[in-house]
Amino acid sequence: MLPLQIQPGSRIPVYVQLRDQLRSLVRIGQLLPGDRIPPSRELAARLGVHRTTVANAYADLEAEGLIRGHVGRGTFICGEPDGQRVAPAATPAATKAGAVRWDSLFAEERAEEALDRLLPPPSGKMISFAVARPPEDLFPLDDFRRCCSAVLRRHGGEILQLGPTDGYRPLRELLAEWLRRDAIVGPHDRVLVTGGCQQSLDLLARVFLRSGDTVLIENPTYPGALAALAGRHIRALGVPVRPGAGVDPEALGFALERNRVKLVLLMPDFQNPTGSTLSAADRRRVLALAERYRVPVIEDHIYAQLRVRGQPVPSLKALDRAGLVIQIDSFSKLAFPGLRVGWCVAPEPVAERLRLAKQAADLHTSQLAQAALAEFLRRGLLDRHLEETRKVYRRRLAAAQEALERYMPEEVLWSEPEGGMCIWVTLPPGLDAVELLVAARERRVAFAPGRLFYLDNAQPNTLRLGVSELDEGRIGRGLRVLGELIRSEWRRARARRAARAEGASAVTLV
Amino acid sequence: MLPLQIQPGSRIPVYVQLRDQLRSLVRIGQLLPGDRIPPSRELAARLGVHRTTVANAYADLEAEGLIRGHVGRGTFICGEPDGQRVAPAATPAATKAGAVRWDSLFAEERAEEALDRLLPPPSGKMISFAVARPPEDLFPLDDFRRCCSAVLRRHGGEILQLGPTDGYRPLRELLAEWLRRDAIVGPHDRVLVTGGCQQSLDLLARVFLRSGDTVLIENPTYPGALAALAGRHIRALGVPVRPGAGVDPEALGFALERNRVKLVLLMPDFQNPTGSTLSAADRRRVLALAERYRVPVIEDHIYAQLRVRGQPVPSLKALDRAGLVIQIDSFSKLAFPGLRVGWCVAPEPVAERLRLAKQAADLHTSQLAQAALAEFLRRGLLDRHLEETRKVYRRRLAAAQEALERYMPEEVLWSEPEGGMCIWVTLPPGLDAVELLVAARERRVAFAPGRLFYLDNAQPNTLRLGVSELDEGRIGRGLRVLGELIRSEWRRARARRAARAEGASAVTLV
Repeated sequence: MLPLQIQPGSRIPVYVQLRDQLRSLVRIGQLLPGDRIPPSRELAARLGVHRTTVANAYADLEAEGLIRGHVGRGTFICGEPDGQRVAPAATPAATKAGAVRWDSLFAEERAEEALDRLLPPPSGKMISFAVARPPEDLFPLDDFRRCCSAVLRRHGGEILQLGPTDGYRPLRELLAEWLRRDAIVGPHDRVLVTGGCQQSLDLLARVFLRSGDTVLIENPTYPGALAALAGRHIRALGVPVRPGAGVDPEALGFALERNRVKLVLLMPDFQNPTGSTLSAADRRRVLALAERYRVPVIEDHIYAQLRVRGQPVPSLKALDRAGLVIQIDSFSKLAFPGLRVGWCVAPEPVAERLRLAKQAADLHTSQLAQAALAEFLRRGLLDRHLEETRKVYRRRLAAAQEALERYMPEEVLWSEPEGGMCIWVTLPPGLDAVELLVAARERRVAFAPGRLFYLDNAQPNTLRLGVSELDEGRIGRGLRVLGELIRSEWRRARARRAARAEGASAVTLV
Repeated sequence: MLPLQIQPGSRIPVYVQLRDQLRSLVRIGQLLPGDRIPPSRELAARLGVHRTTVANAYADLEAEGLIRGHVGRGTFICGEPDGQRVAPAATPAATKAGAVRWDSLFAEERAEEALDRLLPPPSGKMISFAVARPPEDLFPLDDFRRCCSAVLRRHGGEILQLGPTDGYRPLRELLAEWLRRDAIVGPHDRVLVTGGCQQSLDLLARVFLRSGDTVLIENPTYPGALAALAGRHIRALGVPVRPGAGVDPEALGFALERNRVKLVLLMPDFQNPTGSTLSAADRRRVLALAERYRVPVIEDHIYAQLRVRGQPVPSLKALDRAGLVIQIDSFSKLAFPGLRVGWCVAPEPVAERLRLAKQAADLHTSQLAQAALAEFLRRGLLDRHLEETRKVYRRRLAAAQEALERYMPEEVLWSEPEGGMCIWVTLPPGLDAVELLVAARERRVAFAPGRLFYLDNAQPNTLRLGVSELDEGRIGRGLRVLGELIRSEWRRARARRAARAEGASAVTLV
């Protein structure tokens, strides 16, 4: 007996009902290749429908290659014609002991490296240059608490209820207003709230990237950007970042000319990890390239508000005339990263796709966090907090430069960022930052080894110093220790090298 | 001049540096197939390294098929050997007017239907059975506000700073304790906080599913489950849900026997949309099947706490002996869905993969929301709130049953759930719930047409009534209107049918 549920009175023609249900029974495996189905006359009688109805259903299924009639023998199931059908696996995940072999069930054979576990946990006893995040002791906690109470009192029911996928409306409006000061939101753009830049990257990857697509990324870059692409079978090409000057537009041009590039991802301001900023002229070159090859550019703007000296440079989004730039940004480097609220500014068609991707990803971002931040913006507290933060970072970046000058051996090079949180240090060739970290941690100093940030051609003699969380005293003490350790490692390396035949010179350009 | 940066003193052998940088130049397109590279003797002289060093680099690249030497002519680039290289597209997204053709750039040609836009927006004037969410007026707002203030006062800096990817520790511990009452967390399980069940599904899809994999899902089901699979090129097979009795274990058995199934997704309690619950005996049959075929089962437990009558049935997770069940759950049907906090209970190896996937997706869930909910749990407020909520839902579900009895024509069938928020209604064949919705909205009544919930074989004469947000008076008035409309539509449908030749009968099982 076939489990067919036919509704003769339905608006769906009976032959369609019959055809679709038989197809489902084949797909699910309840009807197998070789199974015989009743002759149309017999099935029609059982169902109380015209024989033509059944004959029409069978005709469609035969045209799809799903069934075949053999004269004198009857009608038989042929199996799915689209080649999707696969043989069932005999207990693929079984072991003798009966335990589940999860590894055989995961989509990717190997898990990516857990980047957050390579670095030492934050601790008061450690002078840690490892992280790049706003320091807790600068958070305006009382202000935030008042904003939070105010929105819960005024809009408690609404902000604890389900909300719109593209964001809490007052926050979207306040953000758009705030961003218009820097000409970031154009007439064809929409502001969409996300759970931070990491989620924005992830959603953009979903919206744009198919297996095999090519993406250009700065090398070195933020490891989270690589994580957002991992597992998608994307071809990520690294475009070199020039120390102190940002991504190399010439290399970008080569890469665009000679590859079918789907997306370019750039961080033009105080790039993580190098701290470098792209000049206005180079930004225009990048935009001209994007326009020539019609490639969307994702501008990661997360550090841009943290300029502490020098002239501001307009963002790619503000300079963009072709409508190809999608800007992602976040509160997370300004304050309260634990709230996980960021945003995208994107042309309307992209914003709508992002909205659908976000709906599938997590419905929407926590409304309480969005509403509290909206209130924080509305009261002008963000601008005030930013001013305070910039003052502090100005002192910390300057203290770090001064300490580097004082304590580092001559062979060490470093970037001199005009803002942000990160300084990029290049040790003499032959030194390995991971070995330095091992020695440094014994003296309670930590940093992020440069190799964490490379897509390829990792330079083991590089490292990133995050200075945002340390006061001037700790910055000085930490860099003095690092300077001492580098000197002694460097002495050892030179001795090693002297014992070898090959001559040493500095970086060679051929 | 090749832009090679060779560090002779580096710990990385010079020939490796040279080889890797040349490979990058080919990948990025800066060296093209046919380009000639310098003879090893010449390049060695320029770089100041031994000729053997360059020869070794060239030998590796030649073995990879990337370069080839031609006697008497020199050494040339052959292009990438792995077939990944594609021809550059000439302005793929250009139009004559210069506007960007975004549609040609998205990964999927068509956007999925925006499900949230098919339903009328919530409005006080509308009696809407369209949604299934906890009503705002039941939220214990004062309690929540106090929890929020308390955690901000006590742990403000910490909970506004970046937090661990698998969740705020006090919340994970309190949840584990709360779940142990129902034997849900076993010794080999970890509780991982997510941004709700939608995100849990999305993360599980990332962790387990590759293009072409087969997943079994209840049919009809929650549309968000389908959204989490969309765009992944997954083969989703619908397993029929028996009205009132949950998924059909026999059909599940067929599907598992005859397909290589990667995952099974089930909602055993008060299933959305049918409201049906799987018996303990059927749960054991399902688990025996999962064990036989070694297929992980994702148990969506989101409505399970909302039982208002009858005997509780142990969850699949509690009954699971093989360690194959991953349970996903959330606060969102209990209270405060706008906070977006849910969790997974998963065997340790799965939880670790989920953690990595979450790190790439959004780093972590908003810590303020997590901490406030932890405090809510710690103070015993969740249990108290649940008790209140169940009382209200008991009255609402009973009022709906009573009104359905009173107002619906005899030909209408409906489920009688023992909890949850949803009642599944089957209209007489020939009626279309979307047409009914059009008529109903004119009389300010709304519901969710059944076809939104089907994977295939959609029954147009079905609809879902969500009763959680309406008091008994509005439930009665709304269902009276629906009853009247169904009667008149039914009269019209019968007249239409009488005019046709084909005889009518009720659902026919062959």
